[in-house]
Amino acid sequence: MSYFEERIVRVQELMRKEGAGLLIISPGANMRYMTGFTDDSLERMLLVFLFPEGEPRFLVPELYAAQVEERAAFPATHVWRDGQGPYVAIKDILRTFSGGKVLVDDSMPAKDLLFLQQLLPRAAFSPASPLMRKLRMKKSAEELHSMSRAAIIADQAFQKVVERRLSGLTEREVAKILEEEMLNAGADGVAFEILVASGPNSALPHHRAGKREIEPGDVLILDFGCRVDGYCSDITRTLVCGDPSDRVCKIYEVVLTAQKRAMEVARPKVLAQEVDQAAREVVAQAGYGDRFIHRTGHGIGLDVHEDPYIVEGNTLPLEVGMTFSVEPGVYLPGEFGLRVEDIVVVTEEGVKTLNCCPRTLQCVD
Amino acid sequence: MSYFEERIVRVQELMRKEGAGLLIISPGANMRYMTGFTDDSLERMLLVFLFPEGEPRFLVPELYAAQVEERAAFPATHVWRDGQGPYVAIKDILRTFSGGKVLVDDSMPAKDLLFLQQLLPRAAFSPASPLMRKLRMKKSAEELHSMSRAAIIADQAFQKVVERRLSGLTEREVAKILEEEMLNAGADGVAFEILVASGPNSALPHHRAGKREIEPGDVLILDFGCRVDGYCSDITRTLVCGDPSDRVCKIYEVVLTAQKRAMEVARPKVLAQEVDQAAREVVAQAGYGDRFIHRTGHGIGLDVHEDPYIVEGNTLPLEVGMTFSVEPGVYLPGEFGLRVEDIVVVTEEGVKTLNCCPRTLQCVD
Repeated sequence: MSYFEERIVRVQELMRKEGAGLLIISPGANMRYMTGFTDDSLERMLLVFLFPEGEPRFLVPELYAAQVEERAAFPATHVWRDGQGPYVAIKDILRTFSGGKVLVDDSMPAKDLLFLQQLLPRAAFSPASPLMRKLRMKKSAEELHSMSRAAIIADQAFQKVVERRLSGLTEREVAKILEEEMLNAGADGVAFEILVASGPNSALPHHRAGKREIEPGDVLILDFGCRVDGYCSDITRTLVCGDPSDRVCKIYEVVLTAQKRAMEVARPKVLAQEVDQAAREVVAQAGYGDRFIHRTGHGIGLDVHEDPYIVEGNTLPLEVGMTFSVEPGVYLPGEFGLRVEDIVVVTEEGVKTLNCCPRTLQCVD
Repeated sequence: MSYFEERIVRVQELMRKEGAGLLIISPGANMRYMTGFTDDSLERMLLVFLFPEGEPRFLVPELYAAQVEERAAFPATHVWRDGQGPYVAIKDILRTFSGGKVLVDDSMPAKDLLFLQQLLPRAAFSPASPLMRKLRMKKSAEELHSMSRAAIIADQAFQKVVERRLSGLTEREVAKILEEEMLNAGADGVAFEILVASGPNSALPHHRAGKREIEPGDVLILDFGCRVDGYCSDITRTLVCGDPSDRVCKIYEVVLTAQKRAMEVARPKVLAQEVDQAAREVVAQAGYGDRFIHRTGHGIGLDVHEDPYIVEGNTLPLEVGMTFSVEPGVYLPGEFGLRVEDIVVVTEEGVKTLNCCPRTLQCVD
């Protein structure tokens, strides 16, 4: 049995246990997890329908039929053409539905969900993630292997960047260097738009990379990752162009201690929110509690952000094989921001980091 | 009044006319169109709620508050924090809802729609696109200016590529050259993942760019575009590495004639499907009707694919200011594929192309 067939069997077991009569998966990480195929086009309906028993039904626009044939573990059972539309094919698939909850991919576009709700007006729709995350959160050895490779490629790209003179380059140019290093090292692509935030931009946690030129004295946050076999890496390091001020050094030490503390606390059975609290306590005690304006981390795998979320209110107990980021930060608007991020995997004893590049505040020219 | 305020006024007029009590917009092209702000993160709820009267309500995760402040035409009225969640803020916004249809962004992720449906269990939800497209399909002079710039940057990148020796390069390397040329010429980014399909890959209309090396004798399809001010370009040209066979020349002539015929037919009041039929007839008469396996075109603007779709069954009459692609193709599995694509804008007299690079089958080394 292939990975994919095994996963389908396990999904169907869960469906029967939870009284789900139908699971509908859109292009994205869930489709890749279950079939090996995905695509980023969400415009034409391309869906996997899974009932509690039997083979998956694969609704495919003719334009994608050859790619599905080549890359998916299951055949395209229902192919539809432009000009004809998917309606007849979906009606045919839904004849098999005999009641129960309908679970839909969290990322399915609203237009598809509204269409399906019209076709099944009496069914109760709910998100598929509570079921899917039970499988996807805990990574297999093969999955961890891909994730480690992705992490190491990102680490190495970082090492290359710190060897260069960055002063005078724009944020985008630095992003470009990181991207090229990762692609040259064999990554399939970047995992998300690379973030290079310099000077005051570093205080905006979701700033991308812009046209600003890096100047001596700037704090610089690099947050980036790549994909290997579809699996993501995600790392953040803070640099200083020139010599850091005492204030920057002092606050960076707080952030680093918060990360270390969170990693010490994380182990099987500890709740996700306890890891968040551990980091938050350190930052709050140093007086920057209200400047740590995001959660401590997010799960990672085929999606760059997935369960388990390391956030207040998440009472999920950690289990061996779960992978997530630990990334506390402090942001002082108009001044600078500081963050450090590593990906960890939960082991019997605690956690192990997948990244292995140094976390010290590095100074560059 | 700014562009954005004007657009809000026009959307609210349409809402009142159509009995819509609420419009909810997700990050994406609609949000950019209405507020000037967008982002590709869909994980944390970031939504614009628009009622038939009054200012937009902008639900923003704290992490994005500074960017919204800086780039949006409207203030973030409801900011929520990680660990607290958006529930209380949304409840507060929805207190204003006094009934009527709820229109939701077509691209809203299912998890958000299911959440909103639970909060408004008696409301009737439907897609926002029938309303939004009335505004977005017809481009203003400013929008056309951005689209022309995006088209010309793509044209120029193509000219640079055909001057080079392509034999021996991989598809990805050619994609990279196109991307760099467009970025150097001032594009904000690529409009979609660049497609470079060589040899037998050219017969797969949605093949991306892979590791295959280009060889003498290959047919080569390049399909790419960039963004300027958020607006997209999209162009396809077919090349031959070396001398084309008679068969390739003959079929390319058919594709080119189909495109020409579709452009001749397109003018105000003609139905979208008539443009599709015009192209399809030419291809069918040449005996390749069943190898033209996609619609003739798609609208383009802030989205690379948007209304009006040039497809059988679309009885929408064309109007001045609409912009769409005209891109017939013929695909012979195992052999090769051929396609040509230009973006046109509907004028009083017919259509005008935004692209200006030659459409002849070009031979490269």
